[in-house]
Amino acid sequence: MRSTLQRTLCSDLPAATPGTTVRLRGWVHRRRELSAVSFLVVRDRTGLAQVVVRDGSALPPEETTVEVVGTLVANAQAPGGVEVVDPGITLLTEPAATPPVELWRPELSAALPTLLDHAPVAWRHPAQRARWELAAASVRGFRSTLDAAGFTEVQTPKFVASATESGANVFEVDYLGRPAYLAQSPQFYKQQLVGVFERVYEVGPVFRAEPHDTVRHLAEYVSLDVELGFIDDHRDVLAVLREVIAGMVAAVHEHAPAAVDRTGAQVPVVPDEIPVIHFRDALALVGAPDDEPDLAPEHERALGAWALEEHGSDFLAVEGYPMAKRPFYTHPSAEPRWSNSFDLLFRGLELVTGGQRLHTPSSYDAAIRARGEDPATYASYLQAFEHGMPPHGGFAIGLERWTARLTGVANIREVTLFPRDLHRLTP
Amino acid sequence: MRSTLQRTLCSDLPAATPGTTVRLRGWVHRRRELSAVSFLVVRDRTGLAQVVVRDGSALPPEETTVEVVGTLVANAQAPGGVEVVDPGITLLTEPAATPPVELWRPELSAALPTLLDHAPVAWRHPAQRARWELAAASVRGFRSTLDAAGFTEVQTPKFVASATESGANVFEVDYLGRPAYLAQSPQFYKQQLVGVFERVYEVGPVFRAEPHDTVRHLAEYVSLDVELGFIDDHRDVLAVLREVIAGMVAAVHEHAPAAVDRTGAQVPVVPDEIPVIHFRDALALVGAPDDEPDLAPEHERALGAWALEEHGSDFLAVEGYPMAKRPFYTHPSAEPRWSNSFDLLFRGLELVTGGQRLHTPSSYDAAIRARGEDPATYASYLQAFEHGMPPHGGFAIGLERWTARLTGVANIREVTLFPRDLHRLTP
Repeated sequence: MRSTLQRTLCSDLPAATPGTTVRLRGWVHRRRELSAVSFLVVRDRTGLAQVVVRDGSALPPEETTVEVVGTLVANAQAPGGVEVVDPGITLLTEPAATPPVELWRPELSAALPTLLDHAPVAWRHPAQRARWELAAASVRGFRSTLDAAGFTEVQTPKFVASATESGANVFEVDYLGRPAYLAQSPQFYKQQLVGVFERVYEVGPVFRAEPHDTVRHLAEYVSLDVELGFIDDHRDVLAVLREVIAGMVAAVHEHAPAAVDRTGAQVPVVPDEIPVIHFRDALALVGAPDDEPDLAPEHERALGAWALEEHGSDFLAVEGYPMAKRPFYTHPSAEPRWSNSFDLLFRGLELVTGGQRLHTPSSYDAAIRARGEDPATYASYLQAFEHGMPPHGGFAIGLERWTARLTGVANIREVTLFPRDLHRLTP
Repeated sequence: MRSTLQRTLCSDLPAATPGTTVRLRGWVHRRRELSAVSFLVVRDRTGLAQVVVRDGSALPPEETTVEVVGTLVANAQAPGGVEVVDPGITLLTEPAATPPVELWRPELSAALPTLLDHAPVAWRHPAQRARWELAAASVRGFRSTLDAAGFTEVQTPKFVASATESGANVFEVDYLGRPAYLAQSPQFYKQQLVGVFERVYEVGPVFRAEPHDTVRHLAEYVSLDVELGFIDDHRDVLAVLREVIAGMVAAVHEHAPAAVDRTGAQVPVVPDEIPVIHFRDALALVGAPDDEPDLAPEHERALGAWALEEHGSDFLAVEGYPMAKRPFYTHPSAEPRWSNSFDLLFRGLELVTGGQRLHTPSSYDAAIRARGEDPATYASYLQAFEHGMPPHGGFAIGLERWTARLTGVANIREVTLFPRDLHRLTP
């Protein structure tokens, strides 16, 4: 049965004309039954609305979906300065069972395992939902920045024939009777597609068979991947990364300002130029031995603090990581011990890895042989290079890590809709 | 080494001032060496540019990436009315091997298996690349339409604990020592998230272990999924679908007009209202027995022809498919033999399946038991319903099917970047 009266969203009520009849649809966020009057707070995707019930009828339990048709009146005491009176309340489903977490409280107080077990319900809490709204707005800014810069969005296969990129932590699939693997990243494909479109991006799931239980790793996460051709070196990649992050920040402010308030997210200011420190100098700065192959978490934290103090920046790019610790496709710097690659630290934690890649056939051949592997294994990937590739590079941002840092949560699972890890395959 | 002279894109040349020095970067699309003069056609992501070489030097082979610095001059005979003379040509990689397909010809004439084996190179052909540009523009229009209508983009897990949705054609994964499955669709998750955001969409891979080799099926494809709450019935879903397709068409015209020309795509006009026919009437119209449970391909073609003739529409929605042939979560119509679901035919082929879903706990319980299954198997999915869900529905568009119909290609593999099927896991 089609309704003739349009639905009014909660957020539109304060601007609506008092005295008009409105039709709300949403969830019973909270009911309060007093002796003379009862209040029903209705929640929809835009906010809350107060409904005043004076006829003594019993109110439906929290989380039941309802339609409320009533008269809008001004009331300075009500949220938003308006409320709905003389309501007709229609249940849109059966009375809801009591939720496993109290969604009407200002804060979700349940322990993380409870929240994760009941994710479909826990995500309804406005403060929890707001975390994802930050993620969604960020992805929107990621894409709009790249669209405006001449990038083409691509969708690359998640089934791959061999576990060549890193070898470890790969999921194996029974692929119609033979083994296949799930892509750990779109790296090989985004590079090949630079040969087609010059500038590409992809937003999609990547799969890592992480055998460890940490607050920063998942078996499946969303990777924001970028690759571009005709660069001079990794500094061009970093410049695009800076624009992308600035675009993500701008989109958060534009599309999710209420979510910023609700989560208390500390949205960073992106400097016009991200400060850069060489890996060698970073080691010296934190007092680490000069033959360390990587930065330890405490080094990253110290560097983050230094960047904030020295440059007033939440971001710091560390460039030149030792070639020995980078994947075979990494482009060396002029001094061959170091690479034209970088990590971007955001508040002292790695958020992005990027850099320039090799692009000549002979350099791939040498790099693969130097790792004791046979270039024939990579034939399908290497054909793009044999037929002309430009100097290129790119980066990948882990969406969940970004949102976790924005909101300051300790565990990446708190910003993932339905996390997948060593122990968790449901809900 | 950073360049001081900015790169000029091929598409910017006609508007540039003759006499200025320009720096092109791109691929050698074609070289023509005549006795007195040679021509080098450079290709970049925006188009082609002609370079005139008079010094007798040998030109790099096709597909080699080059930088060309030279003087722009007007020449009415040259493509775009300009060309570059007195060039300095620098190779950006080693001379390219001869491509497996002739990319400089106006049409790609190689057989499909050759094109698929050499996808990283074959996609460089401007006419082939344009096919994907149509896909990318369509996805952009899909998202912008939904963003403007208050939808939230979500990312749902591809690992699922059980093969419950359809049972058949599911890929099994070794998930850290236990079995898991790859999601055949985000159906269960997008429904649960209607409980959170009311209106959601997702663009992502879905996985089907298709044991058959057809021109319309892949083991992995890109699904454009939408789900929305607080609907009256499936007609509200169809209205959103109409807006989404209109948005995809508008985005193709706005962002990929050159790709439309290059592919000869027949971009449809989306009617203000998509014509709807009931399944029962559709059977009668095509002269099929009234107890047929589904439409055969020849029926769909006949209906497509009828919609064009009768309504001047490339689109036709067939509603009311028999409940017996629809998934258990399908909402019945008032007459319980028929469902509140639909298929959208685009030029006589199924492009979209959608409809209203069940939303009360008791209806799920009954529907699952009626199929001889135990509701406990679905406990994780059903918790959203126990705690209050609105009437809702949604649809899914197969991206590759959309692009295939737009461009009129016979095989879905022709519009898929790196198709995955029974026989193909590479490139």
